[in-house]
Amino acid sequence: MAGTETRAQIVDAADRLFYEHGYEHTSFAAIAEAVQISRGNFYYHFKSKDQILDAVIAARLERTRGMLDCWTAGESNPAGRIRRFVEIVVTNRADIQDHGCPVGTLTSELAKLDHPALGEAKGLFVLFRSWLGEQFGALGQYDRADELAMHVLAFSQGVATLAQAFRDEDFIRREVERMLAWLTTVTPVDSATEGDDCSGTQATP
Amino acid sequence: MAGTETRAQIVDAADRLFYEHGYEHTSFAAIAEAVQISRGNFYYHFKSKDQILDAVIAARLERTRGMLDCWTAGESNPAGRIRRFVEIVVTNRADIQDHGCPVGTLTSELAKLDHPALGEAKGLFVLFRSWLGEQFGALGQYDRADELAMHVLAFSQGVATLAQAFRDEDFIRREVERMLAWLTTVTPVDSATEGDDCSGTQATP
Repeated sequence: MAGTETRAQIVDAADRLFYEHGYEHTSFAAIAEAVQISRGNFYYHFKSKDQILDAVIAARLERTRGMLDCWTAGESNPAGRIRRFVEIVVTNRADIQDHGCPVGTLTSELAKLDHPALGEAKGLFVLFRSWLGEQFGALGQYDRADELAMHVLAFSQGVATLAQAFRDEDFIRREVERMLAWLTTVTPVDSATEGDDCSGTQATP
Repeated sequence: MAGTETRAQIVDAADRLFYEHGYEHTSFAAIAEAVQISRGNFYYHFKSKDQILDAVIAARLERTRGMLDCWTAGESNPAGRIRRFVEIVVTNRADIQDHGCPVGTLTSELAKLDHPALGEAKGLFVLFRSWLGEQFGALGQYDRADELAMHVLAFSQGVATLAQAFRDEDFIRREVERMLAWLTTVTPVDSATEGDDCSGTQATP
């Protein structure tokens, strides 16, 4: 019990540190220090930073799946679901302006490091891509579903990178409005956003 | 003379290593090794990796200014100039799929490191932003010039991040076509791309 909690604490702390400062820059020691447990207890759970990275990616995948399931359940209209995705760059604008997109920046960093966990990290993009593709398919855009999904995903990445560089909230909102307007040209959006409390924090691509 | 050449060699090698493997991951020793000069000669030019970073950013700024000047001189139509920018993600597709955008990935990394050179690195984005804004202004889009410039810049970043993650050249070409189609809705593009040999390698934002 306590062991499971400790492990989760380590993963949470590492997740945040990797996001805020990058994977390479975050040392094994810095993670241990953030959690403030004994070296022995820490090593009981993780022997290396790579092992922690695997656990962080697994946790992000699980959280992202939960968020997408929540959006799917909370919105009957597929266009409304896509809109939920588009709007997370506004929802998470504080983190994005500080640290960029957690998926995009980790994937990019691991690619440069030629890190073996890159494939797993890309799985986060794949989750969003597949889910967005399903929504476009459900809107009748069978032939272009994946192409449209990639376009929306590219929007989120472009906004995140420039929002981080320029720390410009107005820019984020303008680009979201532009994307939502585009979405109505793909298919009519008739649902009002239904309320729910799907948390998207740190799962933003 | 030889000293200037050696310095330029060091900067070129560091530029490439920072781009391919990230700033944090590239050691001072790795740069020295790549250039293969004596330790004394190396230290004569640079005392720290931070100093090399400053020189790399200055070199990129100079190269980017040269490229933009070349585009300005080579294309009389401002829309054609913007098109040149849009098309560099195709021109530089090999590097982008391998390492992402040199401007976006460096800026993002330095932001996470809270590095003092971040402001200088952002200057690369500012150059592109200002130049794109000038072109939209020249097209009569005075009120929206900067907004449109940021939209085009966001396109380049979204494409670069996903092209790196998925290594998908068709995706790059599709997004470029989409952006060029959008550009014709902002203003008519009537110029054929005029030939020139502005080199854009590694200056891609």
